[in-house]
Amino acid sequence: MTFGNTILEQCAVLGAISEDPQVLTRTYLTPAHRRAADVIAGWMRGAGMDAHVDALGNVVGRYAGATPNAPVLITGSHMDSVVDAGRYDGLFGVLSGIAAVGELNRRGVRRPFAIEVVAFADEEGVRFGFSMIGSKALAGAFDTGWLARRDAAGVTLASALATFGGDADAIPDLARDPRRVLAFVESHIEQGPVLLDGGHALGVVTAIAGASRVRVTVNGLAGHAGTTPMPGRKDALAAAAAMILAIEAHASERAATLVATVGKLAVAGGGAINVIPGAVEFTIDVRSGDDATRHAAVIALRERCEAIAATRGVTLGWDVVFELAAAPCDPRLQDAFARAIAAQGLAPVRLPSGAGHDAMEMARLAPIGMLFVRCGNGGISHNPLETMTADDADVATRALVSFLEHLDPATLRH
Amino acid sequence: MTFGNTILEQCAVLGAISEDPQVLTRTYLTPAHRRAADVIAGWMRGAGMDAHVDALGNVVGRYAGATPNAPVLITGSHMDSVVDAGRYDGLFGVLSGIAAVGELNRRGVRRPFAIEVVAFADEEGVRFGFSMIGSKALAGAFDTGWLARRDAAGVTLASALATFGGDADAIPDLARDPRRVLAFVESHIEQGPVLLDGGHALGVVTAIAGASRVRVTVNGLAGHAGTTPMPGRKDALAAAAAMILAIEAHASERAATLVATVGKLAVAGGGAINVIPGAVEFTIDVRSGDDATRHAAVIALRERCEAIAATRGVTLGWDVVFELAAAPCDPRLQDAFARAIAAQGLAPVRLPSGAGHDAMEMARLAPIGMLFVRCGNGGISHNPLETMTADDADVATRALVSFLEHLDPATLRH
Repeated sequence: MTFGNTILEQCAVLGAISEDPQVLTRTYLTPAHRRAADVIAGWMRGAGMDAHVDALGNVVGRYAGATPNAPVLITGSHMDSVVDAGRYDGLFGVLSGIAAVGELNRRGVRRPFAIEVVAFADEEGVRFGFSMIGSKALAGAFDTGWLARRDAAGVTLASALATFGGDADAIPDLARDPRRVLAFVESHIEQGPVLLDGGHALGVVTAIAGASRVRVTVNGLAGHAGTTPMPGRKDALAAAAAMILAIEAHASERAATLVATVGKLAVAGGGAINVIPGAVEFTIDVRSGDDATRHAAVIALRERCEAIAATRGVTLGWDVVFELAAAPCDPRLQDAFARAIAAQGLAPVRLPSGAGHDAMEMARLAPIGMLFVRCGNGGISHNPLETMTADDADVATRALVSFLEHLDPATLRH
Repeated sequence: MTFGNTILEQCAVLGAISEDPQVLTRTYLTPAHRRAADVIAGWMRGAGMDAHVDALGNVVGRYAGATPNAPVLITGSHMDSVVDAGRYDGLFGVLSGIAAVGELNRRGVRRPFAIEVVAFADEEGVRFGFSMIGSKALAGAFDTGWLARRDAAGVTLASALATFGGDADAIPDLARDPRRVLAFVESHIEQGPVLLDGGHALGVVTAIAGASRVRVTVNGLAGHAGTTPMPGRKDALAAAAAMILAIEAHASERAATLVATVGKLAVAGGGAINVIPGAVEFTIDVRSGDDATRHAAVIALRERCEAIAATRGVTLGWDVVFELAAAPCDPRLQDAFARAIAAQGLAPVRLPSGAGHDAMEMARLAPIGMLFVRCGNGGISHNPLETMTADDADVATRALVSFLEHLDPATLRH
């Protein structure tokens, strides 16, 4: 349990580096970001890596390969947090990577590839309203127009970066050459209950789910709640209720591959206790690891909602406001993680990731793989109640060591 | 069509007396109230009545009976409006009453009861947040503590009344002696589609519905929309949706005697597109002309919602926030109105009133009766689109004349 206890202690140290003294909130380019970055860089060096904070605020530690011109395997995750966050989301992947490299270093193991551990500076996107800034830069997908984006206080990203000590001019140089990147692998707390409910400490991620988001409007006819008989009502809220149940039923019938959620709903004008709702707006969030499954679901959900609207004499507006393709994990990396898990005496279960991760951006560069670690407390995340046990942190890191030690780079040649 | 055209022209004249130059809004104790009251008092005098504006701003016209000490039959309705109102709600009952008395006066008919036409000063309750102020005073139910109530601008009812030229000290004297009031009858636009859909110009009201209002809270478990599988979710909004459909189904199965409406619904915190709703609050408005039916419905709806909550693993909060007993219309007055309608060659259909009316308060004094007039445009009310035809206004007034002319007061002795 050396790895596990150390990592949980490190999570506690970093959990105290917050821009809010009451809760853990560590957003991009804040003084808390700088302090945490310096601490992480120090731990990287202690594990035998060269380390620096790059032009955008990512912390990059490098452990050389067996030969000078070896390609690189990158691992890591993000070091920023949501507001009032848990300690493990993101950071665990950074610290487990550092611990694994430290173990290889102690044993003098050099692989035919260099290993870099990256603590991405911004994944959550809390401060500037767009996410995965750090991994986008490494993947060559950073748009310099984003430097003009402003935070809630009106500070531009360019100005915040200068204050932090970054270098906007050097951002294009952060983009890696895909020919030199062997793979990107990310360890992450699951942020859901699947491993917990299944009694598994670790899981191999099959794909990061794609998402479709729809804004639905239902227009019926407002009326007096007392004077309008039930037959002939065109109640927009009752129609929306029927749609919500249809959406839930459709996804539940396909629960192995699909989730769908109505997260927001508003009666036009706020509604009144004695008025039949005339118009309602709600959102649908549909996710699947398989894009064809997701696209088929969005079409089917629209057909179900259209049918309900027709039956009830209301009209339906359907506006797909967001689409994100799934990022499949490389089957060879999945298999390599499965072997590393099995080597710990555990069943190598596989599951999709419903949440987005830096690996989605890094997929532009190289094959990706992800290792999920059990999330306690019913799977709660983005919340101070997020938990991970030292045992799970330990076995996850031992699995990562095994993965790094036994990965045959020849199997990954494009 | 003498009555009908005159009444619609009068509605147009009063529809232009508004506190808002753009739309019709005439609330209690405003300059618009005063101007309209003076116009109405003038029309009452033209119809052969003594008329005055009373201490609270009600306009009262009196047409003496055949003998000096005859009891009084009061008719009328309210002269105030909601914000951005239609022209007929309330006013029609005042103007039809004036026209009917005018007809009796022209023909020299005196009944063994005096007839008073009252334009109640406040029924809608827009300005001070409580309703039926005028009829409450005549019914002896005005609480002088209400004089301290303030409008949105902070003006007390006492102060507004003084500015208007009223007399707070004289309010208790407005209360009528129940022994001297034979009946209260009110003509009113239906404010719903029942007569329109049935092809009837007029209807006899059986009862003014009672109402129960419930605030329902559903507590489930918030979760990440992407990482929480469908099985095991405790989605408060999906649970609320199932409850809404159960409420609608229960009322629809009993549509002849019951309406139930979910008018407001809010996801706690406003909800987020990518979060499973953890808590939802909604309202139920239940109405019936029969109190036993309504009470049974509230119990049954609670049982249905509790069953849904249990099935879905969410908790239910159930808070009855408002209860109003139904006001049955007197069967003898119903029959008298039915005969008056039949005398016009029309079928005397009967229907409950889902909305509240001044007659509910006047029921404290005397037996009540109501005559409903067809509402055009699908039954829309509390809206400038509210319509009534001159033909319907005419036949309604002829029916009221017939009712007043033929009512045998002996049948109403307590």
